[in-house]
Amino acid sequence: MNNRLQKDTDKVPEPTLRRLPWYLSNIKLRKEKGEHFVSSTQISKEINIDSSQIAKDLSYVNISGRTRVGYDVDELIDVLENFLGFTDVHKAFLFGAGSLGQALLGDSGLTHFGLKIVAAFDVNPDLIGREINHIPIYHIRSFEEKMKEYGVHIGILTVPINIAQKVTDDMVAGGIKAVWNFTPFRIRVPENIVVQNTSLYAHLAVMFNRLNFNQIK
Amino acid sequence: MNNRLQKDTDKVPEPTLRRLPWYLSNIKLRKEKGEHFVSSTQISKEINIDSSQIAKDLSYVNISGRTRVGYDVDELIDVLENFLGFTDVHKAFLFGAGSLGQALLGDSGLTHFGLKIVAAFDVNPDLIGREINHIPIYHIRSFEEKMKEYGVHIGILTVPINIAQKVTDDMVAGGIKAVWNFTPFRIRVPENIVVQNTSLYAHLAVMFNRLNFNQIK
Repeated sequence: MNNRLQKDTDKVPEPTLRRLPWYLSNIKLRKEKGEHFVSSTQISKEINIDSSQIAKDLSYVNISGRTRVGYDVDELIDVLENFLGFTDVHKAFLFGAGSLGQALLGDSGLTHFGLKIVAAFDVNPDLIGREINHIPIYHIRSFEEKMKEYGVHIGILTVPINIAQKVTDDMVAGGIKAVWNFTPFRIRVPENIVVQNTSLYAHLAVMFNRLNFNQIK
Repeated sequence: MNNRLQKDTDKVPEPTLRRLPWYLSNIKLRKEKGEHFVSSTQISKEINIDSSQIAKDLSYVNISGRTRVGYDVDELIDVLENFLGFTDVHKAFLFGAGSLGQALLGDSGLTHFGLKIVAAFDVNPDLIGREINHIPIYHIRSFEEKMKEYGVHIGILTVPINIAQKVTDDMVAGGIKAVWNFTPFRIRVPENIVVQNTSLYAHLAVMFNRLNFNQIK
């Protein structure tokens, strides 16, 4: 690929990237059931997304379906997993080995989706020097040294909100290029830094509100 | 509140519900710093959301600011936490005590946001009868019996994708009213059932793609 020709218009839209894993899981199930071909219309029926939207989303991926037969299931799984980055190994550091941080360290499932947490940082003396799920926990002051050692681009943010911005700034200064933010704090980063917010608490808020609303009605 | 008068138009929009926790965390930090009053303009500057949007979002919450002074910080925290349901105890069952399921069982932080996981279900004989973080794991066939015992409305879905729909159907048949779906599978539910999708994998996909894109440029 010619690096200089890549423009922002080549960016795959975020909603597309969020939908592709749904298609992937649907197609994996079809493979388990012994199916060999699948069309966007068939996927559409099961996951309640317009088939033209599915076809459009899949057009970003380098695969073409055959008329009246559809996509080859095996090929589509390979191409999607590769496209989504799930077959690579992306190393990550975790910042804040409290309750949620430890939970993420313990979740080996993330490795199946291409994320490998290689080290965690904290300031709690009870944690430093320990390992969780074979992942070492270091003092935060070792961060720069460990950056050189591991060559990591992704930082997972699971610190208390009162230090979320400070730790983010330190991560970015140290060379982290993408922040996966699990705090309910809205962090600020330079334009070239990728941020994904996974706010469990926002999801809880929506769920509680809707539950309450349905029960009152 | 007169139940019969509540209409769908009274529903707080989902984007508002997702933004309110951001305001809450910002205001909590201000309280720590000793501030007593805050305006939507001040919040706006720190979290990069238009102040008119913040004022509109806060208009759903039962609090009014004073001209030229703003909102009382203590009052706004109380009102927001209460409004978002974080001060109540919402009991939940967890379905699927695998890697991610166990991670969530271990995360005591959820209780500070109003969610208390009271039991988990699985089919793995090595897990059944055990406790994780004092939460018992039962065989899935005990679900209906435990529903009577605990009176739970929320089900957390952390099963493999090939049984995600089946377990969802069983949860709904057993009386679960809200499903917090952590699988990459797009579950189907009846209209009156609340669903929140927290797809860690979709967030990873977006992050990997953007990282890659930024590095190629």
